[in-house]
Amino acid sequence: MDYFSSRFKLGILGGGQLGKMMLYETRKFDIHTKVLEASNEAPCKISCNEFVLGNLMDFDAVYNFGKQVDVLTIEIENVNLDALEKLEDEGLKVYPPTKALRIIQNKAKQKLFYVDHGIPTAEFSRFAYASEIEDSIENGGLEFPFVWKAAQFGYDGQGVKVVRTMEDVKNLPAGECIAEDMIPFKNELAVIVVRSPSGEVVTYPVVEMEFHPEANQVEYVICPARIDDQVAKKAREVALTVSEKIQHIGILAVEMFQTKDDEILVNEVAPRPHNSGHYSIEASYTNQFEQHIRAILDLPLGKTDSKVAGIMVNLVGAEGHTGEVVYENIDKIMAMEGVTPHIYGKKQTRPFRKMGHVTIVNTDIDEARRVAQHVKETIRVVSK
Amino acid sequence: MDYFSSRFKLGILGGGQLGKMMLYETRKFDIHTKVLEASNEAPCKISCNEFVLGNLMDFDAVYNFGKQVDVLTIEIENVNLDALEKLEDEGLKVYPPTKALRIIQNKAKQKLFYVDHGIPTAEFSRFAYASEIEDSIENGGLEFPFVWKAAQFGYDGQGVKVVRTMEDVKNLPAGECIAEDMIPFKNELAVIVVRSPSGEVVTYPVVEMEFHPEANQVEYVICPARIDDQVAKKAREVALTVSEKIQHIGILAVEMFQTKDDEILVNEVAPRPHNSGHYSIEASYTNQFEQHIRAILDLPLGKTDSKVAGIMVNLVGAEGHTGEVVYENIDKIMAMEGVTPHIYGKKQTRPFRKMGHVTIVNTDIDEARRVAQHVKETIRVVSK
Repeated sequence: MDYFSSRFKLGILGGGQLGKMMLYETRKFDIHTKVLEASNEAPCKISCNEFVLGNLMDFDAVYNFGKQVDVLTIEIENVNLDALEKLEDEGLKVYPPTKALRIIQNKAKQKLFYVDHGIPTAEFSRFAYASEIEDSIENGGLEFPFVWKAAQFGYDGQGVKVVRTMEDVKNLPAGECIAEDMIPFKNELAVIVVRSPSGEVVTYPVVEMEFHPEANQVEYVICPARIDDQVAKKAREVALTVSEKIQHIGILAVEMFQTKDDEILVNEVAPRPHNSGHYSIEASYTNQFEQHIRAILDLPLGKTDSKVAGIMVNLVGAEGHTGEVVYENIDKIMAMEGVTPHIYGKKQTRPFRKMGHVTIVNTDIDEARRVAQHVKETIRVVSK
Repeated sequence: MDYFSSRFKLGILGGGQLGKMMLYETRKFDIHTKVLEASNEAPCKISCNEFVLGNLMDFDAVYNFGKQVDVLTIEIENVNLDALEKLEDEGLKVYPPTKALRIIQNKAKQKLFYVDHGIPTAEFSRFAYASEIEDSIENGGLEFPFVWKAAQFGYDGQGVKVVRTMEDVKNLPAGECIAEDMIPFKNELAVIVVRSPSGEVVTYPVVEMEFHPEANQVEYVICPARIDDQVAKKAREVALTVSEKIQHIGILAVEMFQTKDDEILVNEVAPRPHNSGHYSIEASYTNQFEQHIRAILDLPLGKTDSKVAGIMVNLVGAEGHTGEVVYENIDKIMAMEGVTPHIYGKKQTRPFRKMGHVTIVNTDIDEARRVAQHVKETIRVVSK
């Protein structure tokens, strides 16, 4: 198949920032793209060849869209899987495959999958309704504190809560969920695994999510993770096992805990380019978006090593600011060494909304870390 | 001024591959762009926010376009300068400034400028009509061989010819031109200088153009150039002098000869992102397109060092092939280490048409050079 400047059409479900960054790569290769997305304001609106307005959870919208493309991929996992399955049955290449998405889309299913396949993960209980949690606590089946996760449609930390009291329990949203043991981890790590239809598999170096000491929020994604080689090796192996069992195509980002005893527990996975891989645009020989495109088109996979150390800082809307966005002091961070801002193109900010990210690269990871902190303390995403 | 996700509009004259690569950066920063271009098939058609069809040499087209943007830049220097001058007089920020473009657009003027400002360059004669060349030879004012260059509208090696016989002279196009001494150079070098309105100036490392031993055609652009530090230092200094005299804003690519005696002679300059800087997308901390955007918006300039060695190979249409393009063996080169193809998106190939380029990066420049040769011997741009 000929993809470059040809009549081949790649369909992408979702038009957010991940799709936007994927489109840099399809433009670079001149691959014709068609995007399905519910919002006319989406970051993908320009740079794709064709834009179709439609609801990603709607069977007909997804099915009809799929009939007009040669390969179908996603940039968000909340899409209508029945439509994908029918398209697959009719011969369309859907990557990642529906089967992999079914495992991943529902977090309760995902956790059960790990248990069924001997993949180490935190202990958990599954509940059809959040109200069942109260009973479970009263019966001694569940103890505080624990981590509540909505089974579906969680996004960017939405749908995850640390529950410490009965009061917290009463405030949980209804619906299917899991309650997971709180892991007193040393590090939160992630590994990106990439798999192509012909079976080529590569992994990226292990990255580390550094948390704010008080706010318990990821502040920096650091590549390579500052951990022992042995732990890094184990993390890559566990990620490869997950990849092999799930049989995804394209990128699979595997988030893991490194426990106090240097055990590796799988937290959750995403079957698409991922926040933990954004550093790769500036730091890696092949960035995750190009790699995803290579994989789903069954082209040879690129080198996953880094040219230099990379650190990523998310740009989220400041508290108390809602409205037309302004990136305060962005000129100041651009004067710092090895700093590249990425602005996703959302015109409106609100507290904690993911508006962009900043990458810091340097040959010296400690220097990169210092610059990253300087970036974090300087730029602010506010409203006019 | 606030450029990011704001109402600010950047105008770009020209919609070719240089503009296309510039748009990756405006997308990354979410800067609103408006492109003026004569062809509806241009590589910039998508990825800009607004596309306007129009002739770049037409006064009204350029003037009216300029009235609708906040800053105006170019991706090709053949544009109507009277329109730019009027826009500038009316207060528009035009970068590079019209004055710099007037010097550069006409090669005879450009050469005279070097002479007037003590910038070393090859000896030359200027002719209002090519027919005057014949007289000059007959009168002993000019000797074979020499290099003929059209004063205006040369592009990608068009408008340059080595003249060895009277027969060659008779075949030259009419019109204003120069006849330049043939320099028996050791190396052809280039340095990119970047200048911002507030006076910040940076230079990129010296690159080397390696020629095919027989065909006398640039085959590889290599960064860093494999030359003595002293020569590299001199080349950067000469480039800085040219930049200071011309007072451009944005990128100025300065092409130079390193003579047999290690003298540096300026060959010609381009006041925009340039083929000799394409390697920077993969190899540099700040690529030339992002740097141009930073400069013309008077943002701090980025680091110009390289993360790794970079080599660029142009993809030009194979001889004997005209029609719908196919990139033969592109999958094979993508399997090689550190290889990234860039496909400009021209649907039709013809002999020697610039259709794309390939970058090869590696920590070891000799290994990069070996891979580059392998790339060159493998990929072919043919018609269906």
